Order: sequence, then C-alpha cells, then structure tokens
Amino acid sequence: METIASLGENASLKRTISRLNKGDHELVGPGDDAAVIKAIDGSYVVTTDTLVQDHDFKLEWSSGYDLGWKAVASNIADVAAMGAVPTVLVVALVAPGSTEVSWLEAFADGLREACLALAPGCAVVGGDLASGAQIVVSVTAHGSLEGRTPVLRSGAKVGDVLAVAGTLGRAACGLDLLASGNTDAANAYDELVSVQLRPQPPIAAGVAACIAGATAMLDVSDGLVKDASRIAAASGVRISIDPTLLIGFEAVLEGPAQALAVKPGTHTEAHYTRKWVLGGGEDHSLLATFPAGATLPRGFKRIGTVEASATLDSADSSSAANSDQPGVLLGLEPLTGAAIDALGWDSVTGI
Amino acid sequence: METIASLGENASLKRTISRLNKGDHELVGPGDDAAVIKAIDGSYVVTTDTLVQDHDFKLEWSSGYDLGWKAVASNIADVAAMGAVPTVLVVALVAPGSTEVSWLEAFADGLREACLALAPGCAVVGGDLASGAQIVVSVTAHGSLEGRTPVLRSGAKVGDVLAVAGTLGRAACGLDLLASGNTDAANAYDELVSVQLRPQPPIAAGVAACIAGATAMLDVSDGLVKDASRIAAASGVRISIDPTLLIGFEAVLEGPAQALAVKPGTHTEAHYTRKWVLGGGEDHSLLATFPAGATLPRGFKRIGTVEASATLDSADSSSAANSDQPGVLLGLEPLTGAAIDALGWDSVTGI
Repeated sequence: METIASLGENASLKRTISRLNKGDHELVGPGDDAAVIKAIDGSYVVTTDTLVQDHDFKLEWSSGYDLGWKAVASNIADVAAMGAVPTVLVVALVAPGSTEVSWLEAFADGLREACLALAPGCAVVGGDLASGAQIVVSVTAHGSLEGRTPVLRSGAKVGDVLAVAGTLGRAACGLDLLASGNTDAANAYDELVSVQLRPQPPIAAGVAACIAGATAMLDVSDGLVKDASRIAAASGVRISIDPTLLIGFEAVLEGPAQALAVKPGTHTEAHYTRKWVLGGGEDHSLLATFPAGATLPRGFKRIGTVEASATLDSADSSSAANSDQPGVLLGLEPLTGAAIDALGWDSVTGI
Repeated sequence: METIASLGENASLKRTISRLNKGDHELVGPGDDAAVIKAIDGSYVVTTDTLVQDHDFKLEWSSGYDLGWKAVASNIADVAAMGAVPTVLVVALVAPGSTEVSWLEAFADGLREACLALAPGCAVVGGDLASGAQIVVSVTAHGSLEGRTPVLRSGAKVGDVLAVAGTLGRAACGLDLLASGNTDAANAYDELVSVQLRPQPPIAAGVAACIAGATAMLDVSDGLVKDASRIAAASGVRISIDPTLLIGFEAVLEGPAQALAVKPGTHTEAHYTRKWVLGGGEDHSLLATFPAGATLPRGFKRIGTVEASATLDSADSSSAANSDQPGVLLGLEPLTGAAIDALGWDSVTGI
C-alpha cells in the first residue's frame, strides 16, 4: 500500500498536480516558489476557508473526491458572493502520513471536477502538502470582478427585496440523515445527502446578481437566519423573512423529516424542516438584496424584505426583541441573538 | 481563563483582527465574504505554505508571537523569491478549542510585527479560525511584480554566478540547540535560536535580484544543496558550490557546534557546521543565479557557478555521480539523490 509518507511530499504532490485541470488565468502555474496570475482589471478577490476532519467532515461519510469537491465549492461560493468570477485556487492539505496516495488522487479528482462543473476556467495553481494528526484542507480562492464594483454585506437599503439563489436546508438535512444512522432513509434521499457531501452553489448567480444591481450579498454558509443577520448588522437594517415564501424550500424536505421524526424521542417533522431551512448553511446558496424595482436575475427567489431597524414600533416595543437593534424578523417574530445562534453554526464551538 | 471555544469563532476573530496592521494594497479589507486587492500591473503572485504543530514547530519552543512571525516570514520569502514585493496575506488557523485567547492575540501580534519589520505595506487581509486536534497555520501570501518579469527556477544559464542573500544554517543550528536540551548552550547562542523561531529572510533582496537580472531564484526552505538541486533540475544545468566560499557561513556556527560536539556520542564539530550550512533551510535566504558579468546586488554573496550538466568529463565519467544528469557539485564532490535528501527536509516524512 502506497502512502504519502512512503512516497514523500514531492512525489505525492507531483501525482496530485498531474490530475488537476489547467485554468484560464495563470501566467506561471504550479512548480515554482509561487504562481503568477492575471488580474485583468487591476484587482482581485481573495478569501480563505478551512475544513477540519471530525469538525467539518467525517471520513466515514466523505470520500477524498467528496472532500476535494466540497473544498472548492465552499470557497468559490465566497468569491461568487462578491459578484466575482472564480479564477484560481491554492490548496494546503495536511494529512496523516499513513494516508493512501489513492485517497490523495481522489481528492485531486474532486478538486478538478468541482472546478470544471461549478466554475469553468477556474483551477488549482498551487498547493502544499504536510503531515499532521488529522486531515485539514485550507483553500484560498481568488476571483475577478471584471471591472464591476464588489457587492458587500453592508449595502442593503430599506425597501430592498431579499432573495436567495440555490437551495436551503438540503445540506443540513443530508447531514442529519447521515448522522441518524438510518441508512434506509439516507439511501432514499441520497440527492439530499449529496448536497451535504458535494454542494452545488449557484456560482454564476453571483455575477448575475452583481450586474442586476444587488445591494448586498453573501453565501449562506452558517444558516439563513444567521447569515441574514450579518447583512442586517453590516447594513444597519432589519431583515424580514416571509415564512410563506419558505414553504417551497421546506416542502422538499418533508419526506426525510418524516423518516427521522418517526423514531421515538425525536422532534416533530415541522421542527426538522424549519431548522434545516432557517439554520442549515452548507448549501452555500447566495443571499442578496435588490432594489425594490429590480428584475431578479434567473435563479433568485424573493423570500423577504429589508426594513428600517428603528421603525418597528409594535405594541410591545419596549421588549428587548423589538429594540432598535438591527436583526432578523421571521414574519412578525423577531429572532434575536440566542435564537439566531441556536439556528446557526459556529466553526469553533461546533454548534 | 478565556479560550477560543468559550469566546467562539467570530468574537475570537474580531479580537485578532483588531491587532493587525492595515496594509497599502487592500480595496476591501477583512469582514466580508472576501477581500478585494489592488493588482497595479494586471497580475499578482500567490503562494501557500503550512506550519503543523510538532512537525514544523513545538509549542514548548515557539510562543504564539514566534509562530505568527514565522508564518509570515516563511511565506513572504517565497513571494520575494519570484522578484515580487509582498502585498497581502490570508491566514487560516486551526487550533484546539482550549487554546487561550491570549495565545491567539500574541499570534496576531507576531503576524503584524513580521509584516511591519520584513515587508512594510504588507498586511493580513483575511483569515479563518477553526478548531482541531493540533495547531495548523496555513498562510497564502500574495505579491506584486510591479511590471517586472518573474524570476523562475528554470532560468539558470551555464556560466552564471550562484549567490545567496541572507544567512545559511543558523535556523538549523538553532533547532539543534533547542533539541539538545542544553539550555546553557541555547541561551549562549540565543541569536541563532531566534533565527529558528523568528526568521528574518532578506525580502527586499528579491526585488533587487530581479532588477539586477537574476536568471533563477528560490528561497532556501529545505536546505542549500536540496534547493540548489531544484534550480539545477528546473534549468537543466549542474550547480557547483565552492566550499571555500562557505567558510564564512560555517565560522559563525563553530561555537554552538563545539558546545554540542562535546557530549559523548555526538558528531564532530565539522559535521555540525557542514550539515547546518548545506542542509539547513529555515533561514529562508534567497539563492539566485546571475549572469557572469552582473554586479551582484547588495546582500548577495557569490558561493558557486553554473555549469553544463553534460560537460563534466573527469576521469571517472562512467560513474553514476558523473552522469549527465543535472545536479549539485560541492567542489569536486558530486552530490546525488540520496546525499541531497540526507541534507534536506521533506515536510511529509519529516526527514
């Protein structure tokens, strides 16, 4: 059995690099001290994110291919959320020396196929391989705004429409299916499990949103409510999500909710669908705000509106929930700090 | 005691980010899905490298500050080795949840001070914090060539001069002093220990070499001979290092070699100084080749020459060592595969 320790860093890296696709943006590719990348409009977008074994993925559930795919998908979603086209990635992989080279090759295949499928022209241009106690994948993703102004989190305006491109709650549902140990249910809904293992964020929708005049945007990585609250905080507004506009997102999750809710001691079906859609983040869909009059680009669905944070003066305006802090409303129900945290994911605490 | 688990990812990151310096190259800084960076000449340089606890550093020897410093220094040396000016960094940190926030703050201080000292104008523009079994620091460093052509490993020409900017062997000597458990010796030579813990690569010398017409360059990260062999292989040449030109590098290491060699069962003094200078990499000095007539830029010292790989026809030209493969000569002594590996460092096998 060939492991990365028996083969060594350089030979292992060579085997990996030979499986990668060649992108459209490199002037100098892998193999030197650094790569040199085109930046046609005189700027570039850069973001980094890490996946840690047993925190962000489990080897029982994710193959090397799955992990390579997910590392690409989760990072280029951040690039797309700026309104940019993903261009190049660098990948730092830490793995135990006992890791089989075939696993590494599958990982490289996942990197390549995710680039080709989600962001054609994008490619890995550099990397690093080191040994450690557990698998850690750090990806730094780059993008080109092609002369456009980036879409920040801070630009949402009162009266804007809140819209989402992509799915909601499917990755979280897939995770619960895997964690349930109910293999019949996991097999029956394997297209939901696959969203957890190999997310398909709507990358091109990021550029489309930028062109359509999106005022704020991010990718839903920690949950709809938690990420909406980030736009609210950055923009100094309150975001009102219309629960009736989430019914379609919940409906497709009713089957697995039913399958999981039958077990004694578990929650109700509605608890699952609501938690997945409001609190599940790993679909890496794009959440954006648009001016009221704008035509939403293809793929975006309206799910709420942007309100002034200080004008919510209902009967119980004295309560903390109705203070003039920015935040998120679900219908008439204000979701404050603890409620938002309960629905989202913190990558350090793991809850 | 405040830990990153008790504080959570976002609050911990906020505390860290507030300690960082602001650089000269960001259009959009930390806090959004991605940063946006200037690329004035329509291109940028990018490289990534990882430090893993107990493989690349030990917490008994390195403080948070040391580790932040080293992560910056080792990565911007790769940028400098292309002939570029370091501009921005993104840093992904994995740490156990039990890590104290004060350690994280010291780490941020190290990042900041290394940027200010080694590459003014360069700054951290983004990061990620996740919990895991051990500390892993992945840095992706970026640079600007300011319109210059990058200096690759593959451009060395027969007749070129081989030169180095920076120190050789000091970091390796510092590591052996730490590992010896001889605290008297480690204290006596703490300026060598400090090169191991907080390397000071000659960053500006990279741009100077590029302007002076360097034909090939890299940073010495795995050892002089191993890294010289990379230039030789990429350029299709043989590199001849003149041992008499290394005497100065060895002389400053004689004191600690003497201190370590007195112990029964250890090697001779000369063994240590030779191993450190030829095989020690973590000084992150710059190794470059220049046309024979070029004036070496300030800081570079000549240590050898570039020869044709096929013209070495001494008496024993039939031996494998004198085949027409590219490689490295030390004086008249050919250093082949195994000898080079014995002097260098592989980040997976750890030898």
